[in-house]
Amino acid sequence: MKNKLLENNIKSKKSFLCLGLDTDVNKIPKHLLNSNDPVFEFNKAMVDRLHQKIVAVKINTAFYEAVGHEGWVSLERTIEYINNNYPDLFTIADAKRADIGNTSKMYAKAFFEKMQFDSITLSPYMGNDSVTEFLNFKDKNIILLSLTSNKSAKDFQLKNDLYLDVISESQKWNNSERIMYVVGATKSEYLIKIRDIAPESFILIPGIGSQGGDFENVILNSTQKNNRILINISRAIIYASNDKEFLNSAEDVVDHYNSRTSIK
Amino acid sequence: MKNKLLENNIKSKKSFLCLGLDTDVNKIPKHLLNSNDPVFEFNKAMVDRLHQKIVAVKINTAFYEAVGHEGWVSLERTIEYINNNYPDLFTIADAKRADIGNTSKMYAKAFFEKMQFDSITLSPYMGNDSVTEFLNFKDKNIILLSLTSNKSAKDFQLKNDLYLDVISESQKWNNSERIMYVVGATKSEYLIKIRDIAPESFILIPGIGSQGGDFENVILNSTQKNNRILINISRAIIYASNDKEFLNSAEDVVDHYNSRTSIK
Repeated sequence: MKNKLLENNIKSKKSFLCLGLDTDVNKIPKHLLNSNDPVFEFNKAMVDRLHQKIVAVKINTAFYEAVGHEGWVSLERTIEYINNNYPDLFTIADAKRADIGNTSKMYAKAFFEKMQFDSITLSPYMGNDSVTEFLNFKDKNIILLSLTSNKSAKDFQLKNDLYLDVISESQKWNNSERIMYVVGATKSEYLIKIRDIAPESFILIPGIGSQGGDFENVILNSTQKNNRILINISRAIIYASNDKEFLNSAEDVVDHYNSRTSIK
Repeated sequence: MKNKLLENNIKSKKSFLCLGLDTDVNKIPKHLLNSNDPVFEFNKAMVDRLHQKIVAVKINTAFYEAVGHEGWVSLERTIEYINNNYPDLFTIADAKRADIGNTSKMYAKAFFEKMQFDSITLSPYMGNDSVTEFLNFKDKNIILLSLTSNKSAKDFQLKNDLYLDVISESQKWNNSERIMYVVGATKSEYLIKIRDIAPESFILIPGIGSQGGDFENVILNSTQKNNRILINISRAIIYASNDKEFLNSAEDVVDHYNSRTSIK
């Protein structure tokens, strides 16, 4: 289990940051387009530059699938490069999968065996047996959607406190110590309620940066008892600029957020 | 919109059947393994043999992703072959995606533009704005999970009638005439309630065959007013046998189910 390693890294690097690689070939610096695999080169450059100042990397599968099988090659190369060069980084496949057992087993094979991610984001809608096959992989984590950062989270998640029920139910499942939760930063007031029922769980928090969540409030409401949070920032870092200075601009954003973080 | 075409095909072919291509290279006949792309060859042979007796094809992305980028190539070749040769078949990417708008747009690109499926299965957990980008593609359908065929459907879907709320809420969304629903055959008694609130919608029904749902009851409970259902069968057809007679065995299963179907 990487929970402990992750916690130690947060403390030693003084960072909660997860780098979100939502890499779109149309948005990266033009000078990278001459390479064979511009998306991989961009990801490599980002991770090479930032790895000491971040604790996790989240790769959003949609951006790779949109390009077809060549995108899937870039995805495979990216995770392999990170695993080979920066094994201390916690890796997340942001794939939002989950299906009946027979099918989930195949998804688990794809992301945990073939690609060796440390964790995957999953939708809780289908319940316990839709995530069991993922949790059967020892040393791997799953990250269940609880309260997402989009406006329509209210449609179902906030009705009858479904977002809390997802957490309290899943805490009873086998291997629940390897379940983390997604809670959007745009809903930081709910973090207090969530911490009441899942004080020990890691929380992955997207929605800072381009989506406008409040960084200080999020940290205040989620780290009363421990440092078990990851704050994901994607677009605000990777597209900070798209000229030859793109890595400096990205690092400035990372420095900015880390400097606003005090970690006990 | 393909709803009308699909309805006409159900009537003329006298079949509700959707062929589920959950193709696993370890389960297909050994004599196919000599080809360059055994999974594609298997899918091609199945569709060539069965296309006149089925109305839809559902491709389960997990089985392709499990093999890595080569699996994604088999997936692309399969959908391209079907679109080029059997444009009357309604195609479903069984992908169970959905994310924030920015990301869903990329998934929609992957499945509707790059691969040109007619429809995709989506999880409703993130609400309306997580499916909008899919519905923005005219002539494409989405298939929202309502009540799935697995045991753990009870964990969240059956609490506070969430499965019904998903249907009644989504019926208010823009372009809702292009929303279909997944309702597992193992829960056929619930089909009556669902038909009350969504009398006109297409329902995709998995869970017959290997999962043990009751074929006659399912049809009885879902086709009182119209023929807008698809019954998906995957393993019971494609793995009916795995020797040189595999296509005959598969066709026998299809004939068996079609012969038990009376369509008005």
